[in-house]
Amino acid sequence: MDRRNFLKRTAVTGAIALLLPKIVEAAILETASTNAVARYKPTKGNIILFQGDSITDAGRNREDEAVPNSQSALGMGYALFAAASLLANYPDKDLNLYNRGISGNKVFQLAERWEKDCLSLQPDILSILIGVNDFWHTKTGGYKGTVETYATDYQKLILQTKKALPKVKIIILEPFIIRGGSALDNTWENDFAPYRNAAKKVASDNKLIFIPLQSVFNEALKYAPAAYWGKDGVHPSIAGAQLMAQAWLKTAF
Amino acid sequence: MDRRNFLKRTAVTGAIALLLPKIVEAAILETASTNAVARYKPTKGNIILFQGDSITDAGRNREDEAVPNSQSALGMGYALFAAASLLANYPDKDLNLYNRGISGNKVFQLAERWEKDCLSLQPDILSILIGVNDFWHTKTGGYKGTVETYATDYQKLILQTKKALPKVKIIILEPFIIRGGSALDNTWENDFAPYRNAAKKVASDNKLIFIPLQSVFNEALKYAPAAYWGKDGVHPSIAGAQLMAQAWLKTAF
Repeated sequence: MDRRNFLKRTAVTGAIALLLPKIVEAAILETASTNAVARYKPTKGNIILFQGDSITDAGRNREDEAVPNSQSALGMGYALFAAASLLANYPDKDLNLYNRGISGNKVFQLAERWEKDCLSLQPDILSILIGVNDFWHTKTGGYKGTVETYATDYQKLILQTKKALPKVKIIILEPFIIRGGSALDNTWENDFAPYRNAAKKVASDNKLIFIPLQSVFNEALKYAPAAYWGKDGVHPSIAGAQLMAQAWLKTAF
Repeated sequence: MDRRNFLKRTAVTGAIALLLPKIVEAAILETASTNAVARYKPTKGNIILFQGDSITDAGRNREDEAVPNSQSALGMGYALFAAASLLANYPDKDLNLYNRGISGNKVFQLAERWEKDCLSLQPDILSILIGVNDFWHTKTGGYKGTVETYATDYQKLILQTKKALPKVKIIILEPFIIRGGSALDNTWENDFAPYRNAAKKVASDNKLIFIPLQSVFNEALKYAPAAYWGKDGVHPSIAGAQLMAQAWLKTAF
């Protein structure tokens, strides 16, 4: 098979079969106006940190958390998949990736451990996904915070970070629900939306890259139900995690 | 940002920065003549099985092995990354992916558990990576098999599989070394080559898709050393596992 046939075969496969690029692109285009911020191009030796709750944590091995690019320390979720793609795509950059997501965290809990689990690592690129528990725990955990608490605490955290690390590039992932998930009652659709909007506002107010994950999952649901992308509607499956990673890469890098 | 600018930005990023597609494409082109076999297009409900040794096993949770698409049961290696890409790219196909790699296995040990760990699952697509221990254990484990043992046992296993599952599509991954790895002495370069060639012959004799992983890693070593892709030269890092997964996807699907 010569080069021409190889490329032809590749092109045909891509055109017919692959839905992932379509899903991600449709979702990103829909919200493209929010991302006037330049993409981040990793440079040599960059430290890249994933922060968040259980979606980021994804069963990571905390004992290895000081080791960059450790398979087990990156968990089994989107952070691992995003890290794998970055590492394989930028082998000449000596990137150092860490995951410090902790299950159950709300934004104030990130703040409590920010010195240890963010600032002291001196990340060049910081990726944050937080918000679902800030709402969820008001329903199930007796948590008293409101969307204003979330918005205020999130904005404070970003300002503190920018002050301590003036050159850090921050990526805000939109908190999302996967509609039809088993853990979601009918209040989520309306009552969680303000949290998504607050995260978006933090990104635009601070000129940070924003990953529109709600649009990504809405688009994905056209091809398969919540059971496929994350059955409880909060925690992504392998397919959902890969979708997140690709949206992250496609939007930010 | 409008669609045109979005696409332009995407194209520019791709052109400048990403080495993974270049590495995989260069390696595949180099050996393209061996793959005259048609690509595999997954169809609805396909069962896809990864088989092999520790590189495939990659710390998978055996307790969950009966559950398709389970994050923990797929391990933390190339099988997980390949599964994630397939699941996210074919959300309309209800694919069922399993990993049954077992650390330390040689080809005769696959044969011993083939009924339970392959045939009974009735895979539509079967992906096999085996061979490194067939050589390694002759050096470190007192194993007495030769490359002829490997070739004969492998061919027998394929014939048995085709007889039991006449429609199965089989993918043979080339066993490989990552040159410069810490576990490799200077005998590997010459003495392991016949095992690679034997796997390639099994693929061509039986008209199976062959993934030229040695070429892929040789190409990758132009950009970063063995420590980056898999420090012992046998077990891939996250970057190495992602490279394998992309080569697998790009060649077979």
